[in-house]
Amino acid sequence: MNTHPYGETFALWRDGCPDDWHEYTHHAFVEGLRDGSLPRASFLHYLIQDYVFLVHFARAWSLAVVKAETLDEMKICAGTVDALVNHEMSLHVQTCAAEGIDEATLFAATEEFENLAYTRYVMDAGLQGDFLDLMAALAPCCFGYGEIGVRLAGSAAADTPYRPWIDTYADAEYQSVMASVGQMIDGAIARRLGDDPAQSARWPQLQQRFTMATKLEVAFWGMGLRGA
Amino acid sequence: MNTHPYGETFALWRDGCPDDWHEYTHHAFVEGLRDGSLPRASFLHYLIQDYVFLVHFARAWSLAVVKAETLDEMKICAGTVDALVNHEMSLHVQTCAAEGIDEATLFAATEEFENLAYTRYVMDAGLQGDFLDLMAALAPCCFGYGEIGVRLAGSAAADTPYRPWIDTYADAEYQSVMASVGQMIDGAIARRLGDDPAQSARWPQLQQRFTMATKLEVAFWGMGLRGA
Amino acid sequence: MNTHPYGETFALWRDGCPDDWHEYTHHAFVEGLRDGSLPRASFLHYLIQDYVFLVHFARAWSLAVVKAETLDEMKICAGTVDALVNHEMSLHVQTCAAEGIDEATLFAATEEFENLAYTRYVMDAGLQGDFLDLMAALAPCCFGYGEIGVRLAGSAAADTPYRPWIDTYADAEYQSVMASVGQMIDGAIARRLGDDPAQSARWPQLQQRFTMATKLEVAFWGMGLRGA
Amino acid sequence: MNTHPYGETFALWRDGCPDDWHEYTHHAFVEGLRDGSLPRASFLHYLIQDYVFLVHFARAWSLAVVKAETLDEMKICAGTVDALVNHEMSLHVQTCAAEGIDEATLFAATEEFENLAYTRYVMDAGLQGDFLDLMAALAPCCFGYGEIGVRLAGSAAADTPYRPWIDTYADAEYQSVMASVGQMIDGAIARRLGDDPAQSARWPQLQQRFTMATKLEVAFWGMGLRGA
Repeated sequence: MNTHPYGETFALWRDGCPDDWHEYTHHAFVEGLRDGSLPRASFLHYLIQDYVFLVHFARAWSLAVVKAETLDEMKICAGTVDALVNHEMSLHVQTCAAEGIDEATLFAATEEFENLAYTRYVMDAGLQGDFLDLMAALAPCCFGYGEIGVRLAGSAAADTPYRPWIDTYADAEYQSVMASVGQMIDGAIARRLGDDPAQSARWPQLQQRFTMATKLEVAFWGMGLRGA
Repeated sequence: MNTHPYGETFALWRDGCPDDWHEYTHHAFVEGLRDGSLPRASFLHYLIQDYVFLVHFARAWSLAVVKAETLDEMKICAGTVDALVNHEMSLHVQTCAAEGIDEATLFAATEEFENLAYTRYVMDAGLQGDFLDLMAALAPCCFGYGEIGVRLAGSAAADTPYRPWIDTYADAEYQSVMASVGQMIDGAIARRLGDDPAQSARWPQLQQRFTMATKLEVAFWGMGLRGA
Repeated sequence: MNTHPYGETFALWRDGCPDDWHEYTHHAFVEGLRDGSLPRASFLHYLIQDYVFLVHFARAWSLAVVKAETLDEMKICAGTVDALVNHEMSLHVQTCAAEGIDEATLFAATEEFENLAYTRYVMDAGLQGDFLDLMAALAPCCFGYGEIGVRLAGSAAADTPYRPWIDTYADAEYQSVMASVGQMIDGAIARRLGDDPAQSARWPQLQQRFTMATKLEVAFWGMGLRGA
Repeated sequence: MNTHPYGETFALWRDGCPDDWHEYTHHAFVEGLRDGSLPRASFLHYLIQDYVFLVHFARAWSLAVVKAETLDEMKICAGTVDALVNHEMSLHVQTCAAEGIDEATLFAATEEFENLAYTRYVMDAGLQGDFLDLMAALAPCCFGYGEIGVRLAGSAAADTPYRPWIDTYADAEYQSVMASVGQMIDGAIARRLGDDPAQSARWPQLQQRFTMATKLEVAFWGMGLRGA
């Protein structure tokens, strides 16, 4: 068997919006991280916004615990909240600290509209729908950063100053968490949609949520490039 | 075709818990309304609790508007909120006013645990799940009262003092709203679970929510009989 | 006494962000409605987006019913949902129908990011905070359109083709609903923050929510001007 | 200064309902744990229900992360979810395993109405209100078990078979988590209600939520004593 490391569901969703997915994972911002050409100001603007993004992303994963219906779903989602708050966000805090920006300043940063649109769309997916609606909206960020991390780890310029960012997502621990999340999502899908989920009545809407969140990722990179 | 006036979904759910449904719709409290033997104090205790129940039931139907995904779902749910706040609750207000209990007192009444358990279970069904989870938890009250109203209207003792209560639910307007709600639920089910919903992976859980809410109706009547 | 027709709270919030408020209520889009110079394509683009906005705005007002704590709060919010679904949205439906766009098309329109950001921000204000947080986020749209309607009704070019839009918000019924909403908000504030709300610990955050929603109104007009 | 180990807010809330608090913390069920007279069947019935309680309690603490407004609130609440899922629940799992009841059976146990009423009331406090409403509803369980644990650790019969239960809550780690939670609540209160919270307009309602949750604790013990 030749399953995707992040699971079958993710592979289906990604293949359901190939152009948007490519635009997201191969965005000019990403290429700038890879070859090191991304202006530092753009990166910092992005990083500050991304910190606030992660605050709301952690809220959304917590909402997933509220909506979970199995012990496995609860544990994986609670673990992801912990990984976000205690691991991924520390990269942002450390990098910004080196630039003289403390965490309280990060937490209080005014959100750009692209940022606001994305995180609140995810949150509302959870309020309006069920656990699957929320997972479909959460998936592009999680797995896309995983894909980007792996690709850039193997192809980035030796002297790119963005190696720590790349390493965060190429990291074995991040990849391992993503594999667990992907497996949990496959189980959550099977439990609610049965053996052939892509043929189920709800599939088009779940795809739509995944696609929308992917488009919001593209807009987020664009916001980063634009700068403050 | 010989469909149920409240729709196919309701008929399936009701037939999925026949004993609980009978216990609910033929409860001693209901029989006491029918033959007039229900003590007035029990009725008043019930009515005060039911007023607070309807406050939270209206909140739950409002949550359904939040969770709706089609215009029809939104309109039917918003209309039900209006029917609850401006029609059904007025029976309670008028009856209690005749006993010297004003609406502010009703609104501030301390909820019995059976009452609390029921309404908050319904609300959480909406927070945890999607529109269908909420509908499954809302259905027993709506349609059960409709069934009871029709049955008692045709069989109640001529001198039962509870005729106004019976008429509220036997009423053509209430029945018509229930028919619309049932049709909307059938559409909501078809949209999300396809043509053979009872064979879908999610069906057992939806049945479980309907059954639990039916059991909570039984407990609510028991609370009424017990008195204050 | 010389209170504002939409209430004391609104007056305080508006005066807490005078520049943003002016930018919103005197935006080039608004001036284009007034003098008739707004391109028809911009108006239609706006109107389609605004229809979807109202769908989510009705969801947010329904969430307010979920969060209400008094009978008055429940009734006013439920009435506003009804006014949105059955009154304000009909302007959009009729105008678009005359252009050959039916309501199903409106309902399915893809939301622009500015639209998404705004409605989901409001919804999350309700999920994260309490009734007041939600009111602060809902207020700018309600009252700003009321102010714009009144101002334009008295100053618009005789031949502006946007008179029906202006009339919708200058309308006595719309103004009356807004007065009721404003009074209800004043009561909700007094109940939770006491007699001197602007001195309470929570005030800065409520102001921040009102200000953010006002900025999102400015962005929404900009989206309209930009066209499809 | 002579502050309470669980904070000033808790001390105020507890002193706001002294009779209910005593009935809860000195309930016959608690005394049965202390002197060892509690029938094993009652304890097991309680423990199975309490496992399901903790599932929903973890969901409610996750909802607190969704509603948090500071980094400290987020971290403490996320940490509490982790402590519940990975520490407190393991006592239940191990004890029940020794009786031949596995975790899947625990997770699927049918909730008694007293259990349902309590957890769903807490959850709805979070949906209806803000972070403080949720904290007031979560506090009695957290701090009451802490108080009971300390009292019983110093007074329990040498041969009570319920020593492991007592130790779980008398444990330095549990007490330390509770101290952090109490301090976080004090900060959350100060941030939203200012320096003299007990004089603020919202206080009576927060007290009411704390009191209701305390009454629900009493009912929960009663459910345990009644047995399956």
